[in-house]
Amino acid sequence: MTSQSMRLMIPGPVDAEDEILAALAEPTRPHYGKEWLEIYDEVIDGLKQVFQTRGDLFLMPGPGTAGLEAALGSMLRTGEKVLVPRNGFFGHRLGTVAEGYGLEVCRVDAPQGEPLDPEAIREALRHSPGIQALAVVHLETSTGVLNPLAEIAAVAREQEVPLIVDAVSSMGGVPLPVDELGIGVCVTVANKCLACPPGVAPISVSGEAWRQMDARANRAHGWYLDLATWRHYADHWGDWHPYPTTMPTNVVVALQASLRRILGGGLEAYYERHRSAARRVRSVMGPLGFKPVTPEAHTSPLITALYGPPGMDVEDLRAYLVAEWQIMIAGGLEDLSGKIVRVGHMGKAATSDYVERLLDGVEAYLRLKGYAVPQRKALS
Amino acid sequence: MTSQSMRLMIPGPVDAEDEILAALAEPTRPHYGKEWLEIYDEVIDGLKQVFQTRGDLFLMPGPGTAGLEAALGSMLRTGEKVLVPRNGFFGHRLGTVAEGYGLEVCRVDAPQGEPLDPEAIREALRHSPGIQALAVVHLETSTGVLNPLAEIAAVAREQEVPLIVDAVSSMGGVPLPVDELGIGVCVTVANKCLACPPGVAPISVSGEAWRQMDARANRAHGWYLDLATWRHYADHWGDWHPYPTTMPTNVVVALQASLRRILGGGLEAYYERHRSAARRVRSVMGPLGFKPVTPEAHTSPLITALYGPPGMDVEDLRAYLVAEWQIMIAGGLEDLSGKIVRVGHMGKAATSDYVERLLDGVEAYLRLKGYAVPQRKALS
Repeated sequence: MTSQSMRLMIPGPVDAEDEILAALAEPTRPHYGKEWLEIYDEVIDGLKQVFQTRGDLFLMPGPGTAGLEAALGSMLRTGEKVLVPRNGFFGHRLGTVAEGYGLEVCRVDAPQGEPLDPEAIREALRHSPGIQALAVVHLETSTGVLNPLAEIAAVAREQEVPLIVDAVSSMGGVPLPVDELGIGVCVTVANKCLACPPGVAPISVSGEAWRQMDARANRAHGWYLDLATWRHYADHWGDWHPYPTTMPTNVVVALQASLRRILGGGLEAYYERHRSAARRVRSVMGPLGFKPVTPEAHTSPLITALYGPPGMDVEDLRAYLVAEWQIMIAGGLEDLSGKIVRVGHMGKAATSDYVERLLDGVEAYLRLKGYAVPQRKALS
Repeated sequence: MTSQSMRLMIPGPVDAEDEILAALAEPTRPHYGKEWLEIYDEVIDGLKQVFQTRGDLFLMPGPGTAGLEAALGSMLRTGEKVLVPRNGFFGHRLGTVAEGYGLEVCRVDAPQGEPLDPEAIREALRHSPGIQALAVVHLETSTGVLNPLAEIAAVAREQEVPLIVDAVSSMGGVPLPVDELGIGVCVTVANKCLACPPGVAPISVSGEAWRQMDARANRAHGWYLDLATWRHYADHWGDWHPYPTTMPTNVVVALQASLRRILGGGLEAYYERHRSAARRVRSVMGPLGFKPVTPEAHTSPLITALYGPPGMDVEDLRAYLVAEWQIMIAGGLEDLSGKIVRVGHMGKAATSDYVERLLDGVEAYLRLKGYAVPQRKALS
């Protein structure tokens, strides 16, 4: 058995639909010229609809970290303070990325599995003078907590601190109105809710964020990862090559195919697709004895993080699903390793086909281990 | 007509063989775990053979510029001096990338179309105290000059200055023995001579380069683009996820397929493939009145840069080849725009099929315009 037959139900990268993989495999386009720009412009326009922004939007080639590094490195100077509230692995990672530029990272931690507290963020901004930006992970993929971004954004606006959002695993999967929330820089990737293979990190920049950057030039944080470089090329090479580097054109063509699917059916239907998959997984696995890691009120429909039934070895379940059912789900990170499973609901993993097969596999495992398995209700 | 039917004969990105595009389109693998690491390790081993290095080698997700930025930003601190000899667009670009980190860029310029002068580099290193690295473009793609890297590397060793090489468009296409030349950090991309779609920048790091980095920590030049971060993950997460970010696994699988082809036939045969294509193009286009931009002794077999015959409009030729022959060749950059054509010999463009069709198209254009076209010799 090879990975080619493995069904990915991890929190990304996701299994892309066949037509998206077919688009990926079209002969490589050059990354410049009129015909290419028609594709590129359509992708940028589509992403602006997903981001709900009229601001600037760029396609940063590379992983999500490249986008986060561009956001932090472009907005702040070495030695400046950034507030990075944390409630899990990816919050810590965002702080580490900030430290890579020599930023002073101020912290407001919430317990793992609990949401960030907007009031604590307000207090931290009030009482720590000189904080130049607030950087927040939207969906903390390590536990499935969807942080209360609307409330946090309101605090950022009230305190007049620019907001950088790591929406790597949430953008496209749940509503995230960038302009309405006043987000300065927002970063995602192709390979999570946008249901594409990995390779680019879309990143939006508001007019307010540009004003901060223009007022604070000379950061010495690189060239390709400096957002001002991207604006320069968009302004000066716009008619044939509006970016500073080679684009991974195959991935962009795949993203075009995916955006057509997503926007063709409407964003609301696309959000509902994830909600529906999450509801089904939880409604069956709950009665089987799995317990949610995060309170229902703070979870997202993009990933379900669960403790196993009493006495069950979650790593053994994961290995069984891979070996016998060709399904890969994720385990816990760091101190949650061996304690929880994480089921992604992005890409093909949000289809009934994938969901029902996973549930078949989980039930078969529990029967094998002697657990009582109640009759599963048919999908309504 | 769409790009899907366009034959790319530009200096990258290249047309990849069908089997490489098929590998690209295999269902996305997760970027961790035992099965994935078998693929990843094979790719790293294959690249070490191409680089001719026993040093460390990483796959930086992103464009070549990401690799160059990682090299310069990891080796040097803001305010330090780097010598960047320049003889064309990409030499200037390398200097610009260095300036992005606030490095002081010392220059030794050679005329466009002429090779860099190792003696001038020696003099610059002798007479400018405090230069912490030498950064050189191997193949200056804007004109086709292959800079005399062996001689330049000898100067770097003699002057005990670490050498960073931009081998973006040369690695794999011509011999480039990284260890033998004592190169500190060497950067390339998948989408030039490695004949793959774009998405990753392989980068090698020597033991000597690590010693410089370890002795000069705290550069505040980022986290994902800091080579020390890559070493940390290779050392600490080596058995399941030996890199700090998500890998573009589809591109890596395509690179695996390409490396199997390249190494299966042997590197020498692969180099000869490019030489043969370049010889053929030059032997036919020379008698048609095209004049080389660079002296034969300093050109590479990877790209042929030519002035058109007297009175011919090279941009009209390019447009004709696109419209009538579905062949894209490149024009000149900046001040060479409208003056030269550049024909790439990488990927499928090095096949007889592509080469002979290009020559058919060029001859047809010249006949159309009333030029005398001598009988073309058959391919021997």
